[in-house]
Amino acid sequence: MNTFGKNLTLTTFGESHGPAMGGVIDGFPAGFKIDFDALYAEVAKRRPGSSFLVTARNESDRPEFLSGISPDGITLGTPIGFIVRNADHRSGDYDEMAKVYRPNHADYTYIKRYGIRDARGGGRSSARETVNWVVAGALASQWLESKGIKIETALTQVGPVTAGDIFDGLMTNPEKPFKLEVNPDIKLAMEEFVKETKIAGDSVGGRVSCLITGMPPGIGNPVADKLHAALAGAMMSINATKGFEYGIGFRAPSAKGSQIADTFLPSDDKDAPLRTATNYSGGIQGGISNGMPIFFSVAFKPTPTLMKPLNTVNTSGEATVLNPAGRHDPCVAVRAVHVVKAMTALVLADYLV
Amino acid sequence: MNTFGKNLTLTTFGESHGPAMGGVIDGFPAGFKIDFDALYAEVAKRRPGSSFLVTARNESDRPEFLSGISPDGITLGTPIGFIVRNADHRSGDYDEMAKVYRPNHADYTYIKRYGIRDARGGGRSSARETVNWVVAGALASQWLESKGIKIETALTQVGPVTAGDIFDGLMTNPEKPFKLEVNPDIKLAMEEFVKETKIAGDSVGGRVSCLITGMPPGIGNPVADKLHAALAGAMMSINATKGFEYGIGFRAPSAKGSQIADTFLPSDDKDAPLRTATNYSGGIQGGISNGMPIFFSVAFKPTPTLMKPLNTVNTSGEATVLNPAGRHDPCVAVRAVHVVKAMTALVLADYLV
Amino acid sequence: MNTFGKNLTLTTFGESHGPAMGGVIDGFPAGFKIDFDALYAEVAKRRPGSSFLVTARNESDRPEFLSGISPDGITLGTPIGFIVRNADHRSGDYDEMAKVYRPNHADYTYIKRYGIRDARGGGRSSARETVNWVVAGALASQWLESKGIKIETALTQVGPVTAGDIFDGLMTNPEKPFKLEVNPDIKLAMEEFVKETKIAGDSVGGRVSCLITGMPPGIGNPVADKLHAALAGAMMSINATKGFEYGIGFRAPSAKGSQIADTFLPSDDKDAPLRTATNYSGGIQGGISNGMPIFFSVAFKPTPTLMKPLNTVNTSGEATVLNPAGRHDPCVAVRAVHVVKAMTALVLADYLV
Amino acid sequence: MNTFGKNLTLTTFGESHGPAMGGVIDGFPAGFKIDFDALYAEVAKRRPGSSFLVTARNESDRPEFLSGISPDGITLGTPIGFIVRNADHRSGDYDEMAKVYRPNHADYTYIKRYGIRDARGGGRSSARETVNWVVAGALASQWLESKGIKIETALTQVGPVTAGDIFDGLMTNPEKPFKLEVNPDIKLAMEEFVKETKIAGDSVGGRVSCLITGMPPGIGNPVADKLHAALAGAMMSINATKGFEYGIGFRAPSAKGSQIADTFLPSDDKDAPLRTATNYSGGIQGGISNGMPIFFSVAFKPTPTLMKPLNTVNTSGEATVLNPAGRHDPCVAVRAVHVVKAMTALVLADYLV
Repeated sequence: MNTFGKNLTLTTFGESHGPAMGGVIDGFPAGFKIDFDALYAEVAKRRPGSSFLVTARNESDRPEFLSGISPDGITLGTPIGFIVRNADHRSGDYDEMAKVYRPNHADYTYIKRYGIRDARGGGRSSARETVNWVVAGALASQWLESKGIKIETALTQVGPVTAGDIFDGLMTNPEKPFKLEVNPDIKLAMEEFVKETKIAGDSVGGRVSCLITGMPPGIGNPVADKLHAALAGAMMSINATKGFEYGIGFRAPSAKGSQIADTFLPSDDKDAPLRTATNYSGGIQGGISNGMPIFFSVAFKPTPTLMKPLNTVNTSGEATVLNPAGRHDPCVAVRAVHVVKAMTALVLADYLV
Repeated sequence: MNTFGKNLTLTTFGESHGPAMGGVIDGFPAGFKIDFDALYAEVAKRRPGSSFLVTARNESDRPEFLSGISPDGITLGTPIGFIVRNADHRSGDYDEMAKVYRPNHADYTYIKRYGIRDARGGGRSSARETVNWVVAGALASQWLESKGIKIETALTQVGPVTAGDIFDGLMTNPEKPFKLEVNPDIKLAMEEFVKETKIAGDSVGGRVSCLITGMPPGIGNPVADKLHAALAGAMMSINATKGFEYGIGFRAPSAKGSQIADTFLPSDDKDAPLRTATNYSGGIQGGISNGMPIFFSVAFKPTPTLMKPLNTVNTSGEATVLNPAGRHDPCVAVRAVHVVKAMTALVLADYLV
Repeated sequence: MNTFGKNLTLTTFGESHGPAMGGVIDGFPAGFKIDFDALYAEVAKRRPGSSFLVTARNESDRPEFLSGISPDGITLGTPIGFIVRNADHRSGDYDEMAKVYRPNHADYTYIKRYGIRDARGGGRSSARETVNWVVAGALASQWLESKGIKIETALTQVGPVTAGDIFDGLMTNPEKPFKLEVNPDIKLAMEEFVKETKIAGDSVGGRVSCLITGMPPGIGNPVADKLHAALAGAMMSINATKGFEYGIGFRAPSAKGSQIADTFLPSDDKDAPLRTATNYSGGIQGGISNGMPIFFSVAFKPTPTLMKPLNTVNTSGEATVLNPAGRHDPCVAVRAVHVVKAMTALVLADYLV
Repeated sequence: MNTFGKNLTLTTFGESHGPAMGGVIDGFPAGFKIDFDALYAEVAKRRPGSSFLVTARNESDRPEFLSGISPDGITLGTPIGFIVRNADHRSGDYDEMAKVYRPNHADYTYIKRYGIRDARGGGRSSARETVNWVVAGALASQWLESKGIKIETALTQVGPVTAGDIFDGLMTNPEKPFKLEVNPDIKLAMEEFVKETKIAGDSVGGRVSCLITGMPPGIGNPVADKLHAALAGAMMSINATKGFEYGIGFRAPSAKGSQIADTFLPSDDKDAPLRTATNYSGGIQGGISNGMPIFFSVAFKPTPTLMKPLNTVNTSGEATVLNPAGRHDPCVAVRAVHVVKAMTALVLADYLV
């Protein structure tokens, strides 16, 4: 229930306000030299307060690696155990929150699932868990990059501000150079919108898009464990996600087959992967990569926590009002840019180790 | 690689033009009386030719159950093995198709994955595989219905013809009676559009929507194996899918948190699940069901096979033309209505057995 | 619950007196040419009546392969589905046996496990299940042999007749040519003892020994999934087993470390695996093969079915007498020689595919 | 590769001389009050130096629990992460050992498996790993005891000193009160023998026996995941094991069926599990518990480390002499008494959670 992957597995633990988060990465290839500076930098990006879009939280978030790596930073092929201490550790100060079910949170479903709930905070349902994924994903990303596989992610929508159908160029003309980059004006407008939303005490949804280049053909499976099914499952494991689409995605229902046929281009080079004239498929055919760029987008709902009073019920089912308290990250999608990258890296590495 | 599920597993086999398809359902509860007539009827619905929207194929598709069921139709708790013979079995007539990579099919990725490809047809990538899922899903559905859990699916878009945001009423006013039903005029328009597309030798995408009612709260997990992640993974395992969304889905990025808060309704009845005033969440909070209706939609691409000549390459990378041959099912989403239901049943039963 | 293996998996089904046994072999390497004659011969050996030591049963036991293999006998990398029809299929003739708990059988434990029991026979607890393993194991054996890995098994004890510590020579002097062969006089004495036991209506235990040669070093894992733990688990999955030992086995408790140190022999050849002066370890160190021969033995209890009346109870707990009926295979270990080989092949292939 | 169990899983990490050992226990039931004092006491027993039979090592071995438990010691149903710091942590002092393959150790097989080896010590192959198992097993034991299931283990052989066929009384007369207790004189003789062996710089094997009482009937599976196969697999995962037997074990090959029939005793009490007149089966029939006591024994080889010079080779294959260094635990079976208990608890809990 707390393990991702089959060949490269990540098993995690940690309540948001317990002593520490942590995990075990099993199946990581032996003999790989880790760049710890790059890794710490990647982990730091996820941290609240790492951008002006997100609120500061007092977390250093530097993982302590406990195994699986030699003193000179080489992986041993054995499980990599790590922990990340929680700066907000509470040892017993049960707050009011424990008696209220917050709307759009997992408080109520948690009680129904386990019969007990960590009164110190969101427990396992907190986005704090994603720090574990980002640590493991950063390791996986480094390894994938050593194989020439690169993952890029970007925030492509916040509320009404959108980068549009950002992959259009890549679908219609895949040979034209493409970078997953959002126009600076749109980026600025997104930031403005998040700020305004925050000032209003409200929250807003967002969309994160991802581009994978350098993926060799032949990776995936035709029935169960399809490559895009694994990506979908991983993305929908990220907190606050509501949808996943790859390639032409939700525009597929209105398309004609003749318009999006992705015909193959003739090639003299027997060793190079075949190319297709268009890439509406999004780099995957029948659950298996075809060597073209892979791309997808993920929809996120607004942060459920608001800085406004909200009607709700207490654990006895009686009406009550939830008053705002603590910090407020109005757009989960902002931080999720890094989490999408990490989870994508874990999925790809799971097939390639 | 050919197993779905963790507690209730379905392991399948079968090439589209080999002797038979089949599977093993393991973990099915003991002591359940199967309604075989209902089961055969459900399987028959998936069959090509079962509706005027799909082309006839000479398949009886009646599964033969080989184990796990007593002579009087009671499950034994042991694995249920079944086979479905292929009427189109070819024992060696390798056709031209074997030398060509069909665009938008898995021919090329298959070769890259396995180094060998079943020259008799689409192999495991064929939608023929879905007969296995529908057999197993029909069993799972019967069992779920005995627990009060009901799954409905409907075709909600074909090309430009759409039933609109069909779940809107359910999100904004979940207490109002709701049926997943498409307006008869729109249904007719869909059928017309599929017919026209077929006559034109083209194909078209579609959208399938699903509604689950009667689901108890507390089913799912907060980190890995989230309920909606499992649904997404299963849906994206269905042939030709391009996207998945649940609850407010891809409208979430443009939403404000205060608009979709799904506040709890006070309740005197301690035994009944709590209700929420709205249901933008789609019945799942933090990966765990909350007892409200669950609903989602799946995007399908057009059938890649066209009844028009298509430019492509042969297995040597040389340009060639693929001429139309055989039957033609212009809209995979039509049959997928039954496959979405089956896979949903398997996912839910996996948590509940 | 009915799947063996992790990378090469075998999922089986079938009640002893249902329509058929069968299974799905998933993960078998693509492009391997199967020798069907050799395979059928191997499967036939397991069959009751295949030796004068075992009683005839009307079973042809020829597997029907339904997928995963091209018409010219080449594996496709896709799941290999197969079935073996039961000649003794009973569709409803519930016999007296259904109301009695046979001693030393799984009748009672089965009811406690599932709440229901296949009234037609031993269900999944019958040794009939092993036909599935032998089919899959024969495929795995062929593939292993193509890699130079050979598995031999022999019956090394029946009641008081024993081949002694058959691996002694291999442990003390592993460089001396060794064959896993039981002295013909002892073989004859075993056969005599089984015959006498049968005539007396009694049954007798036995021991099966196994030798693996050609295994490369480095196969296995140091913590979970140790090579010998996987072998032990597989052997103890065979019906009627009571013990497993490898290398020096149950003589280890009385040994001194200095006597069984298995010191390495110096070697100029950097490419060849190192050799050890002795092989008390049985070819595995710390859960990983070291390139020396691997060997182990398995203890089997006597067949629980006797040709004598046995006191027992009925399903209401009342005293009754179970009268002998049907055929009688007095020594399960005789047929288990082939099952041990098959399961060993599946374990090794699971690590090597 | 580093995970035990299916429902209650333990995933571990840690090199013997790295910063810490640790693990994640997933699937532990929610709402269980842990007795930490009892847990620490159980863990302390495994520690070297905890008995006069074993050599002191500077390890406090107190686990730090990081998640899954509320501040008042109640399990939350979420993964329980824990670490145990290594007092012998070495950050870079590569010693001579790194250039030599120690006989009967996993040094050589490790290099063949991973291509790299932790130069600081035995890495994952060290018995230090068992501290993780004992921590998790102690938790599982407490939970099992709350269900009335009790596990006892004892050292029943060291070299020539043996407690004999300790379970004989339990097999022939299971209704007679039985305690797994070794005669004090024999215990003393074992201790003497270990001391003498240690003084001589040698090591010696041993046998550990285990008794499980209070196990309900119906636990296990008839084909894969048989209860005794899971026990065998877990026991053979313990360092230095060479054999496993349960019930009549390796005396089964010489037994007649009529002698060990374990006939059922008539019973008026429909609610109580049936009893058998004898218990040669060892409490398991067809892979499923029958409610009678379960018992088994495990054979351990002598500690491979000796306090004598040993001929071996270096990593270039050249002859060299390994000189004794450091501490010396002459009989691994002594400490294994606690490890066998822990692993047994994990296996049983895996079926019962």
